[in-house]
Amino acid sequence: VTDAPADSKEIAFVVYPGLTLLDLVGPLQALSLLPVLGLPFETATVGEALDPVETDVPLTISPSRTFDDLPQPTVLVVPGGAAPTMRALGDDRLLEYVRTAARSADIVASVCTGSLILAAAGILTDQDATTHWSCAPQLERLGARYLPERWVERGNVIASAGVSAGIDMALHLAARLAGEDTARQIQLILEYDPKPPFGPIEWDRVDRRSMDPAVDGWIRGALASRPDLIATLSGEPAGASGRA
Amino acid sequence: VTDAPADSKEIAFVVYPGLTLLDLVGPLQALSLLPVLGLPFETATVGEALDPVETDVPLTISPSRTFDDLPQPTVLVVPGGAAPTMRALGDDRLLEYVRTAARSADIVASVCTGSLILAAAGILTDQDATTHWSCAPQLERLGARYLPERWVERGNVIASAGVSAGIDMALHLAARLAGEDTARQIQLILEYDPKPPFGPIEWDRVDRRSMDPAVDGWIRGALASRPDLIATLSGEPAGASGRA
Repeated sequence: VTDAPADSKEIAFVVYPGLTLLDLVGPLQALSLLPVLGLPFETATVGEALDPVETDVPLTISPSRTFDDLPQPTVLVVPGGAAPTMRALGDDRLLEYVRTAARSADIVASVCTGSLILAAAGILTDQDATTHWSCAPQLERLGARYLPERWVERGNVIASAGVSAGIDMALHLAARLAGEDTARQIQLILEYDPKPPFGPIEWDRVDRRSMDPAVDGWIRGALASRPDLIATLSGEPAGASGRA
Repeated sequence: VTDAPADSKEIAFVVYPGLTLLDLVGPLQALSLLPVLGLPFETATVGEALDPVETDVPLTISPSRTFDDLPQPTVLVVPGGAAPTMRALGDDRLLEYVRTAARSADIVASVCTGSLILAAAGILTDQDATTHWSCAPQLERLGARYLPERWVERGNVIASAGVSAGIDMALHLAARLAGEDTARQIQLILEYDPKPPFGPIEWDRVDRRSMDPAVDGWIRGALASRPDLIATLSGEPAGASGRA
């Protein structure tokens, strides 16, 4: 069901229940234009099974491939989300796929809290990265160093900031894969000439800890059966998780 | 399956086969934060049936409601696409839903070539509107006036430009529905602080007719059984469609 050349490089987007759909769809839409423009890439969405899964919006999605079916993509992209992404941090099958696929991939990318999944898979240890602004402490507790940038590229790993940052990261990634002219063509086709009606985010007026209670609720709600992970993500001292 | 208050206002996103997924998901993600923030709105995706439909990327989607199930939403949002959106212009069931729902809705919005669907449903006749830059002539041939703006609001109709413009429009719409502070909160949660890696689109270097052959191909391919629509969209003189 594809007319891509046989030697196309596969760009795999990881799908799991409850993900934040725009984290996935921003970069998926951008990079799916590579084959439309005649370039030797192919995008796929990969899940544990082909069955439909819920997202964080009222739209159910079905991936195009399974983990078993696409074990060695050239590029791996991991989207994020809220409580369901915390739950994914305890999903051994998902982490195993990410760990294995990342090992052979040329490039590994994350969007939003997708970087927590990369960190939990051991891919960001002692590395600079980024995530959704609300989850910087959790990223650090998983062993990475948080930078408040739109995206952070170190070697073959690119982490992007929250949700919409995946679009900017994908254009950068498109340029890395196929050159700046191609990335600009993709930008034009997506008419990505952003005009936020109230201007950019005024970071000096943002309380970066304002979502802490929500994030804590996600962690404790989604990982009730994993006190070890609750302790890690909450920054509790070792052993304190016994109280959970 | 919802915990929204019984008096929530419904924001309905129209789903049809082959649509451009980011047209749908940008505004869907933004406006689905209204209920998360405790406001009396609820988002839904509405299709002719609940069955999964293909999109223009390798992800299949299933809507949450049917046309019959949600005939009178408070807000109606119509996403666009390429050839499949041209096909939708000949889908009487879809046009009838859009026409009927628009009649009772407080606000009708389109993303990208979704405005062609509004125009085909008779909603934009002699009105200012916008669409994807490549389809300005088609919008005008359906009776609207194209403006090269990020979004165009006239009374209760808001049309946005191509694909990613739906995010900007949705923030404007969120402000209209729930105030600017709420829209800014949504922007912050989406971390919508865009940094296109190669800067904004340089419109004075864009040939706005460069996609004409592609658009013509979409129209002739998708509407082979509707020579009348091919003639309208191609700007052929009346009667010339007999050659099709």
